[in-house]
Amino acid sequence: MAVIDIVEWIDRWAGPGQVWYVKRLSHNDTQKTRGHQAGPYIPKELLFRLFPNLNQPTQKNPRIEFSLYIDSHADHRRVQAIWYNNKLNTSGGTRNETRLTGFGGSESAFLDPDSAGSIAVFVFCLGSSQTETHCHAWICRHGIEEDIVEDYVGVLLPKRAIVWPSHHPSMSGVLPQPTTLAQRCYLGPEEMPPSWLKHYPSTREVVGKTVELTSVISGLPPDNRILRRVECEFELFRSVEEFHELPVIVGGFQNLESFLDRAKSVTQRRRVRAGLSLELHAREIFLEEGLVEGRDFEYQAYSEGRKRPDFLFPSGTAYANDAYPQQSLAMLAVKRTTKDRWRQILNEADRVTRKHLFTIQDTISETQIREMINANVGLVVPRSMIDAYPPSFRDGLLTLEDFISHVRVLQGPK
Amino acid sequence: MAVIDIVEWIDRWAGPGQVWYVKRLSHNDTQKTRGHQAGPYIPKELLFRLFPNLNQPTQKNPRIEFSLYIDSHADHRRVQAIWYNNKLNTSGGTRNETRLTGFGGSESAFLDPDSAGSIAVFVFCLGSSQTETHCHAWICRHGIEEDIVEDYVGVLLPKRAIVWPSHHPSMSGVLPQPTTLAQRCYLGPEEMPPSWLKHYPSTREVVGKTVELTSVISGLPPDNRILRRVECEFELFRSVEEFHELPVIVGGFQNLESFLDRAKSVTQRRRVRAGLSLELHAREIFLEEGLVEGRDFEYQAYSEGRKRPDFLFPSGTAYANDAYPQQSLAMLAVKRTTKDRWRQILNEADRVTRKHLFTIQDTISETQIREMINANVGLVVPRSMIDAYPPSFRDGLLTLEDFISHVRVLQGPK
Repeated sequence: MAVIDIVEWIDRWAGPGQVWYVKRLSHNDTQKTRGHQAGPYIPKELLFRLFPNLNQPTQKNPRIEFSLYIDSHADHRRVQAIWYNNKLNTSGGTRNETRLTGFGGSESAFLDPDSAGSIAVFVFCLGSSQTETHCHAWICRHGIEEDIVEDYVGVLLPKRAIVWPSHHPSMSGVLPQPTTLAQRCYLGPEEMPPSWLKHYPSTREVVGKTVELTSVISGLPPDNRILRRVECEFELFRSVEEFHELPVIVGGFQNLESFLDRAKSVTQRRRVRAGLSLELHAREIFLEEGLVEGRDFEYQAYSEGRKRPDFLFPSGTAYANDAYPQQSLAMLAVKRTTKDRWRQILNEADRVTRKHLFTIQDTISETQIREMINANVGLVVPRSMIDAYPPSFRDGLLTLEDFISHVRVLQGPK
Repeated sequence: MAVIDIVEWIDRWAGPGQVWYVKRLSHNDTQKTRGHQAGPYIPKELLFRLFPNLNQPTQKNPRIEFSLYIDSHADHRRVQAIWYNNKLNTSGGTRNETRLTGFGGSESAFLDPDSAGSIAVFVFCLGSSQTETHCHAWICRHGIEEDIVEDYVGVLLPKRAIVWPSHHPSMSGVLPQPTTLAQRCYLGPEEMPPSWLKHYPSTREVVGKTVELTSVISGLPPDNRILRRVECEFELFRSVEEFHELPVIVGGFQNLESFLDRAKSVTQRRRVRAGLSLELHAREIFLEEGLVEGRDFEYQAYSEGRKRPDFLFPSGTAYANDAYPQQSLAMLAVKRTTKDRWRQILNEADRVTRKHLFTIQDTISETQIREMINANVGLVVPRSMIDAYPPSFRDGLLTLEDFISHVRVLQGPK
């Protein structure tokens, strides 16, 4: 059987004795940099557990060779897990990180610049005394593949990675803990609004509470604020979810279908929340920055027919008014991740020729950015992420703060 | 937000107060027949519960209009649920069935012959005293969409439909029960082999047991036998699954991740089994029909490199022997469903120019059959399904029995 799609692939490689590492590939992971063949970064803590012999601090740049199958691209090669450790044993050395390397060049999907921004899944099949540890990998090519992976392992926050199974005993502590601020957002039942104890709060309520819980950072620029809040909200939602789900799942189920339906509803609620909350965070930021809802922007107003872009500037009424100057209208779509789905926004508001798209996806490939530019889409990303983009594109990117200034200017003095 | 993919769509339409009806569209559903605009068949038992006013036995062909959104194809129209009931109140009348109708013509995806063979999902949003019952529908365009639907509602057996949630109180009894033979395949623990009580049996063991449990039909032709066994195996597996899973899920879970992982493993095991078991059923049939494994056929032998077609005839050794005449080689791929994935088989055995494909998918569109013919693929389907195919293609189809004769002839007298 030829393996060609990710559903079949997951069926084959999700099993006991396997460890998944899931990340979004960065430009650094995929591009040739500093004159040597780079490859994806994987944290030491994980690689040392997968390949204990790699942990040779007194040896310069120790490496271990193993087989890696890139099943999404029907490719196989021997690659190396390498520990660049000259910081430890060379005077003036600066590196102390582990990567996979030896992919051969840009004909490998892992070194293809178009793979930047894609979710990559590494399934390490742990060896025994007889067999070698090896790895099967998949680089997602479509948004729907990324959904399937995130349904499987959980939502991938910006600049984070996921190890799965998360409760694999040997893997605890491999990934960084949430920030102190985010940890404080995990609430006990006594800290939750009473109505939340009766039923799940709406995403809007969760976002509102997030703002309250992060008041300590209310002085940060909008771009930092929104990222910190996304992290906070993730923990806050996790606490609400556990409050509601744990009693049910601890109590058990009477039949298989109610068990499976409950699991589906959890997975689905996570996905819906992840998709919806970013828009609501953006709305909070607009309000905090002094934009007035209904006067300066409108959330989910109709443009044409049944189409409702996330934000219209200044309002749906102005948009519907043919006398309102077209060049003073703006539209912002908000998407946690972009992949192929960014094209959805192109027909969301016919009168706005230049559409803006805000995303917190930490990396987008050069090719995709170029496609967006050609489609007259203005990309808005958090300031801290701009450095991750290729220098030639940085000038074309707006921060959230830039975008807010942009709509203020469009609409002129009040 | 424009809805363009099925994951987003399911998130939006899977909720309380909604009833799903999932079927594979037949040629009858999609094609203009008998001079009037047809539309998908939906059983009376379901439509009468969704639209109680449709149940007017004394009125001729009663109908109820409602809104149907075909979200996969960005289409909306007012359609009718109609009860063709002339059998009840017209002398000589022969019809007594309910359908949806009023789609307007073949520009609707529901009347497009290319939709035949696709899984269609109808989500009925139940009305109240103030609101009308309406429907959102999705016609799957790719195999991966069908996987996502089947993960959600369960595996769709040939010529069956699924109502979900299956335990929706008002929906019990809407769909036909399994046959008596299949019901006997649901085993109690005392009827299972002792080793099955310790751990899940392999798919091969389940198929072997299925053969034993269906000995009463061992005299049926191969084509009927395999379909009856697929139904039996479904019930048999369900009994094994409940034996293993119920104690765990009744007992409950300590944390969310172990709960979700368990649910994933159930869904995944179902999918793997559904994909694998048909090959093993075919193997049993070959053996019963007197083909000898290793002499007449080989299961999962290597062709080239890592490629392993489901069946090579007469054997992998003959295939690897350049002196063995190419025209005496054959290959059979086995797939429960075909959709876009049938093309996988085209490069599974280079020396076999005409590939055969056995499927129990009950309907395949004319376009897809034509594509298969052009790719020199011989389609093998159970005899009872041949009538469902367009007359112009029936001559080109082989039954399983035909195919067995074909390979006997290829290989000449023993």
